[in-house]
Amino acid sequence: MGKNNNEEFVQHIASRTEDFAKWYTDVVLKNDMADYSEVKGCMVIKPYGYAIWELMQQQMDQRFKDTGHVNAYFPLLIPESLLMKEAEHVEGFAPEVAWVTQGGTEQLTERLAIRPTSETIIGTMYSKWIQSYRDLPVLMNQWCNVMRWEKSTRPFLRTSEFLWQEGHTAHATFDEAQEETMRMLGVYKDFAENVLAIPVLTGRKSEKEKFAGAYATYTMEAMMQDGKALQMGTSHNLADNFAKGYDIMYLSKEGKQEYCYTTSWGTSTRMIGGVIMVHGDDRGLVLPPRVAPYQVVIVPIAAHKEGVMEQAKALLATLKAAGLRAKLDDSDQSAGWKFNQWEMKGVPVRLEVGPKDIENRQVVLVRRDTHEKQFAPIEGLGQTLPALLDDIHVSLFNRALANREAHTQDVEGFEAFTQAVQGGFARAPWCGERACEDEIKALTGASTRCYLLDYDAGAHGDNCVFCGKKAKHMMYFGKAY
Amino acid sequence: MGKNNNEEFVQHIASRTEDFAKWYTDVVLKNDMADYSEVKGCMVIKPYGYAIWELMQQQMDQRFKDTGHVNAYFPLLIPESLLMKEAEHVEGFAPEVAWVTQGGTEQLTERLAIRPTSETIIGTMYSKWIQSYRDLPVLMNQWCNVMRWEKSTRPFLRTSEFLWQEGHTAHATFDEAQEETMRMLGVYKDFAENVLAIPVLTGRKSEKEKFAGAYATYTMEAMMQDGKALQMGTSHNLADNFAKGYDIMYLSKEGKQEYCYTTSWGTSTRMIGGVIMVHGDDRGLVLPPRVAPYQVVIVPIAAHKEGVMEQAKALLATLKAAGLRAKLDDSDQSAGWKFNQWEMKGVPVRLEVGPKDIENRQVVLVRRDTHEKQFAPIEGLGQTLPALLDDIHVSLFNRALANREAHTQDVEGFEAFTQAVQGGFARAPWCGERACEDEIKALTGASTRCYLLDYDAGAHGDNCVFCGKKAKHMMYFGKAY
Repeated sequence: MGKNNNEEFVQHIASRTEDFAKWYTDVVLKNDMADYSEVKGCMVIKPYGYAIWELMQQQMDQRFKDTGHVNAYFPLLIPESLLMKEAEHVEGFAPEVAWVTQGGTEQLTERLAIRPTSETIIGTMYSKWIQSYRDLPVLMNQWCNVMRWEKSTRPFLRTSEFLWQEGHTAHATFDEAQEETMRMLGVYKDFAENVLAIPVLTGRKSEKEKFAGAYATYTMEAMMQDGKALQMGTSHNLADNFAKGYDIMYLSKEGKQEYCYTTSWGTSTRMIGGVIMVHGDDRGLVLPPRVAPYQVVIVPIAAHKEGVMEQAKALLATLKAAGLRAKLDDSDQSAGWKFNQWEMKGVPVRLEVGPKDIENRQVVLVRRDTHEKQFAPIEGLGQTLPALLDDIHVSLFNRALANREAHTQDVEGFEAFTQAVQGGFARAPWCGERACEDEIKALTGASTRCYLLDYDAGAHGDNCVFCGKKAKHMMYFGKAY
Repeated sequence: MGKNNNEEFVQHIASRTEDFAKWYTDVVLKNDMADYSEVKGCMVIKPYGYAIWELMQQQMDQRFKDTGHVNAYFPLLIPESLLMKEAEHVEGFAPEVAWVTQGGTEQLTERLAIRPTSETIIGTMYSKWIQSYRDLPVLMNQWCNVMRWEKSTRPFLRTSEFLWQEGHTAHATFDEAQEETMRMLGVYKDFAENVLAIPVLTGRKSEKEKFAGAYATYTMEAMMQDGKALQMGTSHNLADNFAKGYDIMYLSKEGKQEYCYTTSWGTSTRMIGGVIMVHGDDRGLVLPPRVAPYQVVIVPIAAHKEGVMEQAKALLATLKAAGLRAKLDDSDQSAGWKFNQWEMKGVPVRLEVGPKDIENRQVVLVRRDTHEKQFAPIEGLGQTLPALLDDIHVSLFNRALANREAHTQDVEGFEAFTQAVQGGFARAPWCGERACEDEIKALTGASTRCYLLDYDAGAHGDNCVFCGKKAKHMMYFGKAY
């Protein structure tokens, strides 16, 4: 019965190789992670998806606090005149802003933007709050919703409204701002790899791809199973660009009025899309244990037999006491149905317990990632399971890393380049010119993802993979979400 | 020195008796809890204020989860046509809605409301998600921002944008919805009393004061130190009103299509205003320990003397290890300045440690609420302090309760009534008529706050305190924020 059930179940999810986009949507919708709403481009994050976000938030927030940041909350609405003060920034964001023009029955004299990001409103407040070098650095973060009017949207990956965190800091010098920018890029990488089990490339964005108004944008980029890139988070050194636009100044030790140097950095619910596309398989979601709402699901076998439900309940209590997020599926569905259901939902470990197991004082553990089955003594599950979950984390990470490495090529010549970006990343010397970048994109669909920070293409005498001019950077190219 | 410093410091805060409104604003602004923004009616919640909100969130969220609720996230924007489906609801909220009319460069064909509350959008989703009695109950909550276009605003108490949580549930029967409504009112009361140390009256709202579209609204009301009421949270039984408006139906066990019964319930950052006005004194904020960002501040005395800073740091480590939120003030300000600073910021306990104390293996503990000083052995502070904090919690609660009881009068006749509502609550039989309620408000400034659930005024043969008609309810009246 398990088999038939299984087939019936998984046929609802498209296979990754046949239609990756449909597979993704199936996984999101059938797992109740998100749903479309009545508002074009806005999604509902359903409880199973939101629980993943809560776990991400907790673990990221702890990292922000450990690095000295505090949370605050700034207004949703930004007067148009305020948004306009940093020229590059406006140009980048104005086309995708939603505008409030009426408040109650009153027609507003000035349009208000729903924040697409908050540099402008936060900069205005920093200008008021920061007086002296003693006030620096200012290290704040906020968790909030933002809105960017998007034409085509996909749950988690690109929606008009999304949830994110945005850090905003102000410093006395360029160097301190740069240090903060890199520190937070490091925090992001640590989070992606050690919590989400997603290996990320970190590097710098081209001028075209950088944040509107930034001096320099650094990014972490992950490879999805279809070979495409997902930008998972960015950290910007804004230098004194916003300080000049928003008049953020301080009185130095030497008694001089100086501009501050600011940074901003952000990650969003988009990372949930990354988790799905990096780890999932044809049976559905595969969740990394540290963000799995349930890490272990207990499925009683022959639940009607004496002692089974009692043992299952006792196990639930044991696992919870060990700090695990555990669930007992005591519904009246068949065991086979439950297996499929919780596989689709990506729970890292299934624990089966039946009359035979109880006799032998053991349980069956089934890993979601490899489908491996093992027996484990009931005694000591509070230690066995955390170790198994750590092992799953490492396996997921290694599998994703191997996939990225298998689909990343150092290419010579544009033909090899064009080939490489069809199914992954191409790494190649690049001239740094916008025109060249645009042409590559037009011809291949690939964009610049990030360039190595510690490689001086000039010193190596490299030439640009496309135009043949003297190369400046060693750049990763790829098609991107 | 301490004294002079003290006077200089506290003179910046208005006294409560002279100008309670100015005292409130002083406490908010001088403690960096919130600030005004460039957008009329919108405030910035600064880190010290936001840290209190985070502690509130954590402890409330745990209570929601313990009662079976899950979190989700619904869109910020609501199409006008959707908002219009429940007639009473629209009438109540339309005048204070902010409208989005442009997205990017495009003029929208339909206006989008920024959510003033989310019954309409959530109801629409529930209509889609709920099919059968097996899907019920649905028990969801969301933490988000909402917007109500307000003319006059005050930080935390009334702002156009504010942060809140809104619970939305759907049930098979009216009775189950009623049970949920009362359960969450109980959760709120438990939270207010056991976390915020604020005693609250719970009861039912008049028809005039109930939530637009609700069948019945229940509320918790607290008395501020100026005798005014603050509505701290509400829980609504929506009966099948929204189910009919938004087509939320289920197939019953008997195979019949039935309307669901829904509830909603909310609390907001407004509670921070309540904490300030219930507990604060002329030196500033007095924080209840369970939401104090710092529960204990360590002030080293003669910090330059040998061993003092080392001991202070060791104490910090001890307190943190005991799970306390502790701060060591190692700035180069004078001890007197620090005393005043942390008193103003409302930290429940100040711990002083100097050379003499170290010799005697003791510290000085000073309670923020009573200013009582006591010596305590260094050994065992990990137990002494939590007990002291619990004691402070109880004291704060009792003081607030005594204040409310001293300013609540059972009144006979309208003269006594008018007197009573000048400085507190009047409790009196009331007819339940809207016209009578409006006239009382016009004459005295007092509104109906809530009526007792277990008192049948009719059975007692009471007459309305104002119009003399047969009374229906035993009602609390008061002026309100």
